[in-house]
Amino acid sequence: MLQMRLRGGSLKFYDCKTAPSPRRVRIFIAEKNIDCETVQVDLGNGEQFSDWYKAINPDCVVPALELDDGSCLSEVLAICDYLESRFPEPALFGVSPKERAQILMWNVKVEQQGLASVADAFRNSARGLANRATTGPVSYAQIPELAERGRSRVEQFFRRLDEQLANNEFIAGDRYSIADISALVTVDFANRLKLSLSSEAMNAKRWYEVVSGRPSAAA
Amino acid sequence: MLQMRLRGGSLKFYDCKTAPSPRRVRIFIAEKNIDCETVQVDLGNGEQFSDWYKAINPDCVVPALELDDGSCLSEVLAICDYLESRFPEPALFGVSPKERAQILMWNVKVEQQGLASVADAFRNSARGLANRATTGPVSYAQIPELAERGRSRVEQFFRRLDEQLANNEFIAGDRYSIADISALVTVDFANRLKLSLSSEAMNAKRWYEVVSGRPSAAA
Repeated sequence: MLQMRLRGGSLKFYDCKTAPSPRRVRIFIAEKNIDCETVQVDLGNGEQFSDWYKAINPDCVVPALELDDGSCLSEVLAICDYLESRFPEPALFGVSPKERAQILMWNVKVEQQGLASVADAFRNSARGLANRATTGPVSYAQIPELAERGRSRVEQFFRRLDEQLANNEFIAGDRYSIADISALVTVDFANRLKLSLSSEAMNAKRWYEVVSGRPSAAA
Repeated sequence: MLQMRLRGGSLKFYDCKTAPSPRRVRIFIAEKNIDCETVQVDLGNGEQFSDWYKAINPDCVVPALELDDGSCLSEVLAICDYLESRFPEPALFGVSPKERAQILMWNVKVEQQGLASVADAFRNSARGLANRATTGPVSYAQIPELAERGRSRVEQFFRRLDEQLANNEFIAGDRYSIADISALVTVDFANRLKLSLSSEAMNAKRWYEVVSGRPSAAA
């Protein structure tokens, strides 16, 4: 059967192929099979600080989404929520109020316990990010102790993930959701720091095989 | 006119009167005039680490919400989203998909740039929180440099807030929303660290007068 690509109208997605946050949106778009124009922002050369991109997102981070009326959204959650309203199928935020809340809950836990910890570890230690310990327009020096704490917290998060997946097929229950996308991106981002799911984390490993095997994971 | 209190059924809200995160939910509940049972969790005495509370939220943080079926939600965003579905009026997440996304976007910006910065500054410097630099079941030592960075980032966030409020009545546009609740709680939390909106931040100060003057702000 031929899969129809959904028309994204004049949506324009501001991406950077090498960065983890926009990858969350890329996977979301792939799952929904949305066809929309994509613009690469060259973070390596500081294009996020250019005047043209500041007009898209004054906070100088990707991803961003330009809507049909020319207004712009930033922040992964906001962009995905908008795309969910406009392209409801397949549902990636659940369908009932309770399921939706559970998915949002797990998405927050993954972001705060997982993704933020990897980011702390990465941005406070990478050689190329001296004085770029946080994203955004202001420069902050790296804090080596925070990189260390980030690494510990990633390991703690991986244990938490494994516990949750002992009794759930996907992170927030029976359904693949945005929380799985966030967690997949977290695990792959952590790999850059040579942090990976331990061989004892059988539940998380089983889950990782499944979610990383979906075609969308190539995004 | 007598205001009717909405029936919260057997919802049970786990709160701590002195903590900023559950205050976000308290204000949300007050705006919607929901009548629900509230349980105080004594963070000062470590009740969040008790077995009974771990069964509510294994991450050992407040707030949490127990639903009619006995299942529990944690994380402010998830709890508020659930309450919004169940008690839609007044809308605190907007009404159209675009407005909702803009509110979610600003709520994320307030959390990441504002609230997380105040928390970094507070938890990494408060005497009573030695070895409690993060919330949750694992203990981490304070990082004084992170407290300093947090203070700088709070000031940067206050400037961002003022800029945004130069052209908007409320944080995400024309409508009071969860983003205003998050920002109000952030400003009041920062006050504990003697960080306040500068006298030059006229737009933010105008906004603060309005939102802190609403009856819900007493929650």
